Amino acid sequence: MVSETVSTFDCEMMSKAIQLAQKAIYSCPPNPAVGCVICREGEIIGEGYTRPTGNNHAEIEALMNCSNPKGADVYVTLEPCSHIGRTGACTKALIKAQVKRVFISMIDPNPLVSGKGIQALKDAGIDVVLGLMEETARSINRKFIKFITEGKPWVTVKIAASIDGRTAMESGESKWITSSGSRADVQKIRASHSAIITGIKTILMDDPSLDVRIDPEDLQVSDPIKKPCKVVVDSNFSIPNSAKIFKTEGEVIIATLRGKQQMEKSKIFSKNNVKVLFFDSSNDQVPIHDLLDELAKLKISSVLVEAGATLTGSFVAGSLIDELVCYFAPKIFGDSALPMFKLPIKNIDSHLALSLKELRHIGSDIRMTFAPDKDY
Amino acid sequence: MVSETVSTFDCEMMSKAIQLAQKAIYSCPPNPAVGCVICREGEIIGEGYTRPTGNNHAEIEALMNCSNPKGADVYVTLEPCSHIGRTGACTKALIKAQVKRVFISMIDPNPLVSGKGIQALKDAGIDVVLGLMEETARSINRKFIKFITEGKPWVTVKIAASIDGRTAMESGESKWITSSGSRADVQKIRASHSAIITGIKTILMDDPSLDVRIDPEDLQVSDPIKKPCKVVVDSNFSIPNSAKIFKTEGEVIIATLRGKQQMEKSKIFSKNNVKVLFFDSSNDQVPIHDLLDELAKLKISSVLVEAGATLTGSFVAGSLIDELVCYFAPKIFGDSALPMFKLPIKNIDSHLALSLKELRHIGSDIRMTFAPDKDY
Repeated sequence: MVSETVSTFDCEMMSKAIQLAQKAIYSCPPNPAVGCVICREGEIIGEGYTRPTGNNHAEIEALMNCSNPKGADVYVTLEPCSHIGRTGACTKALIKAQVKRVFISMIDPNPLVSGKGIQALKDAGIDVVLGLMEETARSINRKFIKFITEGKPWVTVKIAASIDGRTAMESGESKWITSSGSRADVQKIRASHSAIITGIKTILMDDPSLDVRIDPEDLQVSDPIKKPCKVVVDSNFSIPNSAKIFKTEGEVIIATLRGKQQMEKSKIFSKNNVKVLFFDSSNDQVPIHDLLDELAKLKISSVLVEAGATLTGSFVAGSLIDELVCYFAPKIFGDSALPMFKLPIKNIDSHLALSLKELRHIGSDIRMTFAPDKDY
Repeated sequence: MVSETVSTFDCEMMSKAIQLAQKAIYSCPPNPAVGCVICREGEIIGEGYTRPTGNNHAEIEALMNCSNPKGADVYVTLEPCSHIGRTGACTKALIKAQVKRVFISMIDPNPLVSGKGIQALKDAGIDVVLGLMEETARSINRKFIKFITEGKPWVTVKIAASIDGRTAMESGESKWITSSGSRADVQKIRASHSAIITGIKTILMDDPSLDVRIDPEDLQVSDPIKKPCKVVVDSNFSIPNSAKIFKTEGEVIIATLRGKQQMEKSKIFSKNNVKVLFFDSSNDQVPIHDLLDELAKLKISSVLVEAGATLTGSFVAGSLIDELVCYFAPKIFGDSALPMFKLPIKNIDSHLALSLKELRHIGSDIRMTFAPDKDY
């Protein structure tokens, strides 16, 4: 919440910082995407955004751009860090630069450090204005916020379907339901997640590559896109060595059950870019909650589920979804085609209630983004 | 197409005539909805729209509003009639009134009279400007155009569903999927059709009244809403005498098969407001094509299908749909719930392709209006 008075110029500068933050979302995870603008006397004298992990934070990038930041106003989308991490504390750099005021959109969501950066700035006599464009800043970092506060990856489920809610023919035939515009859009969504999860049935039926085929230039960003790793839920370890998923860039994780057959099979996959995670299970299914916990340990802060009705249904049933992105093609497939979610709900009051967050035409398709209702 | 030059004033006046035409759609069928504005020296001197069948056409209404239409410009959304029907030819009245120019949005689609009204006006020395706002005028009268050119009623199918394409639980439980806003919107759609078709399963399961419960004031129209008749597709004549549909205003048509049992049962329903139509069939189903032909003979120019997956699927399978209106509620019902269309399509290339015509938020729901693609 903005408690102090801000000018339209301040709004404009923070909006600029927000735009810079957006440039970081494809390269900075598991760090938050942050943008920073430094101004003096109505002129921008420096700007920057979070570089890939291990490199500069936004504030350092912006300060490095300035010749003389003394007495300047700083606009930053997230509370500057006060701890000495891989890159040195940003608060320390701002204090050393003798800036006058710091506008901050949102407090660091990490409860362990939250507020400490602001306190450090205030202790050094720097004015702090908090809350400008907070909602937008939170939205950009919604995946990071969940990861840092709950220790679990953000889960987006993506589905392409006909308007009667069918994702493939009974035979499994499904290429291509949606238009090329929607498929290009899915590329952007993939690029903004740390991992893509699919099921073994999808691998065996469609043999998808699940890779990101867009260039940073297409996204108007300068840092390389951090390719999401690909996770296959494969209880029996049935994936063939020839699957396309192994032939594309980036790591593949096989989530399988702890068993003799699986242990044996894993030896064949002892390649550089394949990791096997073994799980115990009471029902012959890889436990999705445990899988997400394991992925969190690997610093995977967000996952995109691109799977069939069974696996997608398990995510719904497990109350694990944060965002549902549906691409509806203006087509009717009929009732023998495959459903969106395998999910037996008997009573109408037991349905999963969602809120529509965004509605867009993409080519001839309609993209709808939903969030599950709170009591889900 | 507009071949002559028109002014912005002309556009404004025709737009006014279009708005007047829209006021007639709930009361004028099976006649077309027409609006008329008469102007002299930049001032509106008369206006009118089609009154209920047997009453004045728009032009006569507008002329009756004028004290002196001599030398005036007339804006009318459909070619004035030249035949003497129940209300006298409009061209004759315009000629007698000695108007100077007539702007017409679209030619009368009836191939038997099309162009004759324009010719009559020209023969009398009146200037005619054709095609102004033709597309909008055609859209308002799309139901009439189909009826008059093809001799078959326009067919709209309305479905309320969850985003995973489910219209009810497995048990049939379905109240209420969509929000009150969507249900109010359905009232308007019902009011703009001449008949509502449903299936016996829906009657037995939901016992809907299928009536129009809005007042003309809610629609900002002055004439009474012509209540659509209610048609039940009921091969075995299983409808109970106690069905709610019989207790509401307006005619009920039972479409059943020609059989001894049905003939017997029909005697019980020999009430004033119930009509029974008997059909021959090779597969124990009422033939939908024949039903629509019979309804056309009864001057029913448009039907709204509000039914379950079986009957709705038959309309899709029979290539009978002109417009599909879907209300999607932001909910997930799961795969054991009932489908939108019972329609076995085996091959992905055999899907029914649609074009999205309109997309709107209604309350928490999303309304999508589709037209089937041409080769359907």
